[in-house]
Amino acid sequence: MSSVGIVKPQAFRFDAPLQLQSGASISDYHLMVETYGQLNADKSNAVLICHALNASHHVAGYYEDQPKNIGWWDNMVGPGKPVDTNRFFVIGINNLGSCFGSTGPMHLNPATGKPYGADFPVVTVEDWVRAQARVADQLGITQFAAVMGGSLGGMQALAWSILFPERLRHCVVIASTPKLSTQNIAFNDVARQAILTDPDFHGGDFYAHKVVPRNGLKVARMIGHITYLSDDDMAEKFGRDLKTGEYQFGYGVEFEIESYLRYQGDKFSDYFDANTYLLITKALDYFDPARDYDGDLSKALAGTKAQFMLASFTTDWRFSPERSREIVKALVDNQRQVSYAEIDAPHGHDAFLLEDARYLNFVRAYFDRIAKESV
Amino acid sequence: MSSVGIVKPQAFRFDAPLQLQSGASISDYHLMVETYGQLNADKSNAVLICHALNASHHVAGYYEDQPKNIGWWDNMVGPGKPVDTNRFFVIGINNLGSCFGSTGPMHLNPATGKPYGADFPVVTVEDWVRAQARVADQLGITQFAAVMGGSLGGMQALAWSILFPERLRHCVVIASTPKLSTQNIAFNDVARQAILTDPDFHGGDFYAHKVVPRNGLKVARMIGHITYLSDDDMAEKFGRDLKTGEYQFGYGVEFEIESYLRYQGDKFSDYFDANTYLLITKALDYFDPARDYDGDLSKALAGTKAQFMLASFTTDWRFSPERSREIVKALVDNQRQVSYAEIDAPHGHDAFLLEDARYLNFVRAYFDRIAKESV
Repeated sequence: MSSVGIVKPQAFRFDAPLQLQSGASISDYHLMVETYGQLNADKSNAVLICHALNASHHVAGYYEDQPKNIGWWDNMVGPGKPVDTNRFFVIGINNLGSCFGSTGPMHLNPATGKPYGADFPVVTVEDWVRAQARVADQLGITQFAAVMGGSLGGMQALAWSILFPERLRHCVVIASTPKLSTQNIAFNDVARQAILTDPDFHGGDFYAHKVVPRNGLKVARMIGHITYLSDDDMAEKFGRDLKTGEYQFGYGVEFEIESYLRYQGDKFSDYFDANTYLLITKALDYFDPARDYDGDLSKALAGTKAQFMLASFTTDWRFSPERSREIVKALVDNQRQVSYAEIDAPHGHDAFLLEDARYLNFVRAYFDRIAKESV
Repeated sequence: MSSVGIVKPQAFRFDAPLQLQSGASISDYHLMVETYGQLNADKSNAVLICHALNASHHVAGYYEDQPKNIGWWDNMVGPGKPVDTNRFFVIGINNLGSCFGSTGPMHLNPATGKPYGADFPVVTVEDWVRAQARVADQLGITQFAAVMGGSLGGMQALAWSILFPERLRHCVVIASTPKLSTQNIAFNDVARQAILTDPDFHGGDFYAHKVVPRNGLKVARMIGHITYLSDDDMAEKFGRDLKTGEYQFGYGVEFEIESYLRYQGDKFSDYFDANTYLLITKALDYFDPARDYDGDLSKALAGTKAQFMLASFTTDWRFSPERSREIVKALVDNQRQVSYAEIDAPHGHDAFLLEDARYLNFVRAYFDRIAKESV
């Protein structure tokens, strides 16, 4: 197993307006894309990797001038890795509205000549999938061997199977859910409130004020981070350990967990865009493919044609195994072929990004099978 | 069963300095107190009720000029109620540093003539218990029939059993924990960060600026509120229901749960003091009686003499039944007499405040037994 090595992102530009679910549309946008491995002659070995909140098109490898900037799923994608780039042509696309290079709220709105800010349209998982399909069109890929993602990325994979049933042979949905729970939405809304009420947010137009709603972003990230970790894992890593060994009787950093979370929050607010945070959490909230079918997920998935692989993690309380099982059940109702693994792992929701032999072997075995299929 | 009816709080004043765990001390303070029922001749029928974060000395009944301002545990305390004021003399004390009448950060610091603000000393559960003991002294109560509380109130009851083993015959600890988990501390710290980083907080001296850190308090309360409710209960009450029935594709109130939480947050920031929120969450974080015994709770409870009653609620994920069982185990290790009930209830942590026949009957039966004891 080795890394895909040096990679280089490319911008795909789109002039034609993309119609969005909200009724708005966006023109003159670009998406950042990375690819790894070689597209075969009949263009049948492409795998699309969809990213979650805090990730991008940079799935694997590193940049020539940034050797430490390693792709977010580098343990999953590469030569000899579970998604083997010796066999598959793997594509990462930064979603519309993200803050990692694709057109987003911080870019100039051609209609006004100013940053979009609050005017950037609210996008949905389905909008992202339609934008990704245009990238596939440009690459001449009519059908993916697989569309794959974890968490919010898994929602995109699931949406692909519904919106473009003919365009993927396999749909790989990891640590995901058919829709957010009330509690999931509640946590998202508190995070949004922290950003929206930060005086430095300026109604989304903070770019013009040369400030960033750092405090709001920090609190939002701290909330998110707590929900990504398992209670037990947090307890094992930090316990009730104190920075100095003694109670300080003040409001500075005291417990190690405070130090860790505040650091994570500060780091996040250094690079993440507040408008992007808002729009991605809304995309999460909105995702609910069963909504157009009276809440019946089986009906929502009736038109799918792919084979499915799902995985969940026992200590994930954000998107618990129960939520994956809802998808499995709905697929089985439709007599779809489904492989499902519930991985006993201590690291909560974040487990989908981490090293875990059982998990990675499960994915490897599945992609080995895909590679051996005759198309 | 009827209400205790019209009640009237009284201020207990203390001139002598109270030595605090932090090393600081406080003088010239007062505590607000309410009592219900009659103290018997040998002063053996007193029950102290300890309150949690968002409550006060106003445990039962209502005020003559505020008939709708009903005590927070009115379903528990009153004539014929589980803690029967026909038998017991019940006392509610507002804790030092609270914002419901007892001396707190919003009061004048006699040393400076200005509101304490950031200078109000950080207090601990043990400090509160020592302050409560002084109230008992003034009332001539040498031994309580019971000291009782839920959540943070349960911590105070437990601390009573350790600090003043001779001064209570029964210790009633509901929906509580021997110490906060790492995750509990994490949620508290995010809430504090929301307040501390609100520009209207002014380092705790917002009184002088005639503002209130409303946004920080609102976010803090929203976070807290999510942890008080169970995931299932929230799902049942609010689901994914939308205010208008349609997605709005914006950042206003959209889901019913958002409306509910923002309303709760706004209401809270209308009346709760930001400095009080900080100090109470710190008191929660600090509570850990086993800390002085190498983490051994059995040793920490070895000197207790009371009989114990504990109750927990199955869907409470803030202080889960497992946490109560840790206390029960440590008491059993010490051969203390313990009654413990794990109540199957859907309402999460908040269940300890709500109507639930099995729960209230369990408390009633326990207090019936106390009433029949010869002292």
